[in-house]
Amino acid sequence: MSSSFGTLFKVTTFGESHCPGVGAIVDGVPPRMALTAEDIQVQLDRRRPGQNKLGTDRNEADQVVILSGVEFGKTLGSPIGLMVKNKDQRPGDYGTMSQIPRPSHADYTYRAKYGTHASSGGGRASARETIARVAAGAIAEKFLFEEYGVEIVSWVSSVGHVDAPQVDMEQISRELVDGSDVRCPDAAAAKLMTDEILAVREAKDSVGGVLSCVCRNVPAGWGEPAFDRLEALMAHAMLSLPASKGFEIGSGFEGARQRGSVHNDPYVMKNGRLGTVSNRSGGVQGGISNGEPVYFRVAFKPTATIGHEQATVDYDGNPVTLAAKGRHDPCVVPRAVPIVESMAALVLADLALIQRMRG
Amino acid sequence: MSSSFGTLFKVTTFGESHCPGVGAIVDGVPPRMALTAEDIQVQLDRRRPGQNKLGTDRNEADQVVILSGVEFGKTLGSPIGLMVKNKDQRPGDYGTMSQIPRPSHADYTYRAKYGTHASSGGGRASARETIARVAAGAIAEKFLFEEYGVEIVSWVSSVGHVDAPQVDMEQISRELVDGSDVRCPDAAAAKLMTDEILAVREAKDSVGGVLSCVCRNVPAGWGEPAFDRLEALMAHAMLSLPASKGFEIGSGFEGARQRGSVHNDPYVMKNGRLGTVSNRSGGVQGGISNGEPVYFRVAFKPTATIGHEQATVDYDGNPVTLAAKGRHDPCVVPRAVPIVESMAALVLADLALIQRMRG
Amino acid sequence: MSSSFGTLFKVTTFGESHCPGVGAIVDGVPPRMALTAEDIQVQLDRRRPGQNKLGTDRNEADQVVILSGVEFGKTLGSPIGLMVKNKDQRPGDYGTMSQIPRPSHADYTYRAKYGTHASSGGGRASARETIARVAAGAIAEKFLFEEYGVEIVSWVSSVGHVDAPQVDMEQISRELVDGSDVRCPDAAAAKLMTDEILAVREAKDSVGGVLSCVCRNVPAGWGEPAFDRLEALMAHAMLSLPASKGFEIGSGFEGARQRGSVHNDPYVMKNGRLGTVSNRSGGVQGGISNGEPVYFRVAFKPTATIGHEQATVDYDGNPVTLAAKGRHDPCVVPRAVPIVESMAALVLADLALIQRMRG
Amino acid sequence: MSSSFGTLFKVTTFGESHCPGVGAIVDGVPPRMALTAEDIQVQLDRRRPGQNKLGTDRNEADQVVILSGVEFGKTLGSPIGLMVKNKDQRPGDYGTMSQIPRPSHADYTYRAKYGTHASSGGGRASARETIARVAAGAIAEKFLFEEYGVEIVSWVSSVGHVDAPQVDMEQISRELVDGSDVRCPDAAAAKLMTDEILAVREAKDSVGGVLSCVCRNVPAGWGEPAFDRLEALMAHAMLSLPASKGFEIGSGFEGARQRGSVHNDPYVMKNGRLGTVSNRSGGVQGGISNGEPVYFRVAFKPTATIGHEQATVDYDGNPVTLAAKGRHDPCVVPRAVPIVESMAALVLADLALIQRMRG
Repeated sequence: MSSSFGTLFKVTTFGESHCPGVGAIVDGVPPRMALTAEDIQVQLDRRRPGQNKLGTDRNEADQVVILSGVEFGKTLGSPIGLMVKNKDQRPGDYGTMSQIPRPSHADYTYRAKYGTHASSGGGRASARETIARVAAGAIAEKFLFEEYGVEIVSWVSSVGHVDAPQVDMEQISRELVDGSDVRCPDAAAAKLMTDEILAVREAKDSVGGVLSCVCRNVPAGWGEPAFDRLEALMAHAMLSLPASKGFEIGSGFEGARQRGSVHNDPYVMKNGRLGTVSNRSGGVQGGISNGEPVYFRVAFKPTATIGHEQATVDYDGNPVTLAAKGRHDPCVVPRAVPIVESMAALVLADLALIQRMRG
Repeated sequence: MSSSFGTLFKVTTFGESHCPGVGAIVDGVPPRMALTAEDIQVQLDRRRPGQNKLGTDRNEADQVVILSGVEFGKTLGSPIGLMVKNKDQRPGDYGTMSQIPRPSHADYTYRAKYGTHASSGGGRASARETIARVAAGAIAEKFLFEEYGVEIVSWVSSVGHVDAPQVDMEQISRELVDGSDVRCPDAAAAKLMTDEILAVREAKDSVGGVLSCVCRNVPAGWGEPAFDRLEALMAHAMLSLPASKGFEIGSGFEGARQRGSVHNDPYVMKNGRLGTVSNRSGGVQGGISNGEPVYFRVAFKPTATIGHEQATVDYDGNPVTLAAKGRHDPCVVPRAVPIVESMAALVLADLALIQRMRG
Repeated sequence: MSSSFGTLFKVTTFGESHCPGVGAIVDGVPPRMALTAEDIQVQLDRRRPGQNKLGTDRNEADQVVILSGVEFGKTLGSPIGLMVKNKDQRPGDYGTMSQIPRPSHADYTYRAKYGTHASSGGGRASARETIARVAAGAIAEKFLFEEYGVEIVSWVSSVGHVDAPQVDMEQISRELVDGSDVRCPDAAAAKLMTDEILAVREAKDSVGGVLSCVCRNVPAGWGEPAFDRLEALMAHAMLSLPASKGFEIGSGFEGARQRGSVHNDPYVMKNGRLGTVSNRSGGVQGGISNGEPVYFRVAFKPTATIGHEQATVDYDGNPVTLAAKGRHDPCVVPRAVPIVESMAALVLADLALIQRMRG
Repeated sequence: MSSSFGTLFKVTTFGESHCPGVGAIVDGVPPRMALTAEDIQVQLDRRRPGQNKLGTDRNEADQVVILSGVEFGKTLGSPIGLMVKNKDQRPGDYGTMSQIPRPSHADYTYRAKYGTHASSGGGRASARETIARVAAGAIAEKFLFEEYGVEIVSWVSSVGHVDAPQVDMEQISRELVDGSDVRCPDAAAAKLMTDEILAVREAKDSVGGVLSCVCRNVPAGWGEPAFDRLEALMAHAMLSLPASKGFEIGSGFEGARQRGSVHNDPYVMKNGRLGTVSNRSGGVQGGISNGEPVYFRVAFKPTATIGHEQATVDYDGNPVTLAAKGRHDPCVVPRAVPIVESMAALVLADLALIQRMRG
């Protein structure tokens, strides 16, 4: 259901903006794995607001605490409770905001769904919920790397109309990605993206972007036929992220323009095992990994909260003009990098455990 | 797990190409709904091979039988068993084919996963598995239409490099879509698409395409926060289809290029309820439907099976040349129309039932 | 949900009394296992009505057909579709019966739940639904025996007030159990039970009974802490059977009378591994198997359908006298033996696959 | 999976004895329900150790904190995070204890399962895990009472060989139950039970017992056919509790001795709706509630931890004598009362929400 993800490696999250905290229970983590809060904190630090001039001014420390499931620095195999305290627990004021559904926000839909809504608007639609995912995903990543050598790297491949050139998916690393605040490994594109974000910020506006992600060393055989294909679970994971609007794997929408004779990936011997000459499949065939890098792209819309004035109506239909005050990210994609990596890790860790049932 | 989809309105499928049949169990169908095999057959007929000159030569009748859950023409509320017999139950020959993994097919990955594979290659990756989905989806559609007036229409919006112009999402109907064999409601585009498909067929090649789909009259409030957002389940559903490579909802990848001031959908009063002026959100905000049409697009790669010669290697790494013989669709998208509609219906029916828990 | 059981080894069933058939989809069956319809038929034959003078006169052949998931006599790893045709598909007459809810039957509750009910009364509460479970369970049993040497044997340990003495749980076999029609391995008790059943039949009455079951060679480590303890899943499985009223594992209700100093099972070395001197735990500690035989008991109430006259009321509250005509079992427990074995096998096969995730 | 229970009203728990805390995420709680920590604390206080002379000397305050899902005293519809801090977070000493598997404890099976175990032995098998269940169950209870008037009352019906007479299930209340420390509403039996518990305590021994539970005002129609019958889910819930060995509903094991003519519950008009004259069915027919009180019994074995000396072996098979030091309950059943009530509430709340899908 709604707040849980995964079958065997399973994360359940809680928390919205103005409550004591956000957190997760991660069930199915294999026993005897070394794990400390610091292993998790690394990705939370990459996700936190206020890292640099491109994001919101809010500076949230977001320190994770491990509540259970780990003893003497090793996992027990029992569920791992994780919590990050919210700094600001005061429910927001119920003045103007509560009378006006913010355009392209979840205020209206939460009210339609629940007949109520959190003071912070669409409570669980808040980006703070992703803290719990990143924390859980960091554990999944550690498992995947230690057991299978799986490496997951995401980066910003476009901001607005600025596209980064193709990167070398075999070489791209988090170090390269974090070389720029905008998390684009191509220096020239990073410069243009940065300019774009600063410009929209100046204009009290926002802008969308696209993240790419590659998962290397995924063994052949992960992914379940029919409904739980690897790409289906990955799409589910990515489209469950706030502001995401699209997902494509391998050749994606561009592949839909091609002919089979061009698009097919012929086999070839690689280091003693079968591999493919090209990788338009994105590392997946028939929903199952084939040993080649799994790569995909995720589209994020521009942040809905903007300082720019918007003409809209209140819940009663009266015309109003709305201009958000305060702190917001003009572009979410740089901070979405660890979030995308975490969701990818959750999908792969679950498929890894499921495949183990085949002995 | 793998062969099941949905939480309350739940479908479980079985069957591959060369076994007695394919089918489904549909659990959670509301009681006292009129239902006959003919209600289901309509969509199966739109899916079946050999409808016209654009598809494979195989002409499969694909008659559905209702095995349980219906009595005196009404649903009982118990699970509905559905079956469609396979015409050709002979397992394929284990000659050449079994020694060569077909490029961009599931032969290799199924072998990696299971240590065996069906004689027809990647058994459950077969398009015949989608028969069970279409049959189940037809029941979901009937429920959605009768209870909520929901209408779901999919159409072909591109084949290879041929794009159809935007259609009027309020007006598009299955009658308009079925006006051409290629299932594109724009006559000029349909003509070009048809030419393209006939050309690739002549060239013993294949070509990809994109389907669009709109779901009208979805009430506000469907979709679950966090992991089971409407668009997340829809992406899961669509990327679980054979040959699909991408999904986008509303503004999609194009929306990632825009600014918030342009992209946001301001509210406005419409027939006594709040609606939005534009619909870049695709009918969903914060993962929950807002009462506007839900629309999305799905990219399909070109069919992997082609008569064109391909250089590849066999399982032992020996270079071989492969050219598929026999019957295949040069372009899957026209026949994918009812499949996409069915998966959309399964997602929405499940979310409708889940939302009912809120009384 | 309702018609599915299991997480990885997962069975979904369909069918009621008066429809074309009953059946199941079994997902998660490991690939490359030898399997034929005959492997399944053996247990169906032990379940079928009309085997001997103790049961109903109905003689149903109940031949199973494998619809998918098996090729050349081996499992593929894909879902296995199973079907058994119903002989009598005519919906029952809607005369007297439909106006009177039969005492201790599901007629009334199904109507309360669904606002309708199958012509055969509480459709899915029919004993015919258990055919699908037995078919699925036979596959689970084969997997458990071949992979782990697990042996599951159930027998009748009481009918009415007739109790069988303790049996030797290490020695009991299906051959011994099937030595009497009543399926009690103790000859003297079997004779008394038989007399009791014939007496209630003569009196147009029915009588309850208790089944015992032992599962040998279950490796230590199966069962999941907290909610999915081995005994919790086993109790779930057994109380999901029609007419079951109670479940106890190991010392059970009798154990609740004892003191810890008597009840505890001390450890001892057995064949090079730790075992326990006594086995009041029933092979499970903390919800996890300990390598000792898992054994439990299941109570079944007397059949609700009796020829004996009963004073009751119709749906409108008018007093009526009801006396069932036709065919029914005066005592369900002899035929419940393979059903209990099958449900036990489904629980254990699922836990076996889940434990594999720990590598 | 293991740490989650329920489909729509779903609880996921974390925590063992020696970690920062134990807690739960409760998903699916209906929005706009009044809820405070005090609503939950009431049941936690009835569960906590050290309430009186019958239990352990440990006095644990077990204060619950609501972490999310509630604002301004009302539920939001989002997941409710709950936490109770552990007082003693020091992992236990790894001296003698870790070399000797305590008889009838989970030490050995956890080691077999995970290849490691928490310093407190079978970590998740600890009774502290039930804190999370009681907290979650208190929310379920409040929902059931406010929406449907459902009342759930459990009491001690036997301790060792002391049985309480039948109670009036229509009249029994928590006030009556809490009238004695041993939580048996019959004063004479309570006196004998108390004597028995004090005697076993003096003898450094322990004793088992049986809890009864009644759920009144459950509407007809709850419970799902086939695998998720009301009694199946209830048995699952109860057998998932530490130390439980048996479950019976309605007539239970005694019913297995009866004839159908005696056991059947004839219908009768009651306050304008159909009811039954007797209630041997325990309020459930065909797995679905019939509007009569749902009642059942749960057997608990004697506490495995005893001060009495036990002859056993260590992990290497060397004979040792073990005598537990320190604090333990000589009889768990008085404190198990709110735990059984909570699990019953979780089952019923889930079935209530599921039944709502039928509109």
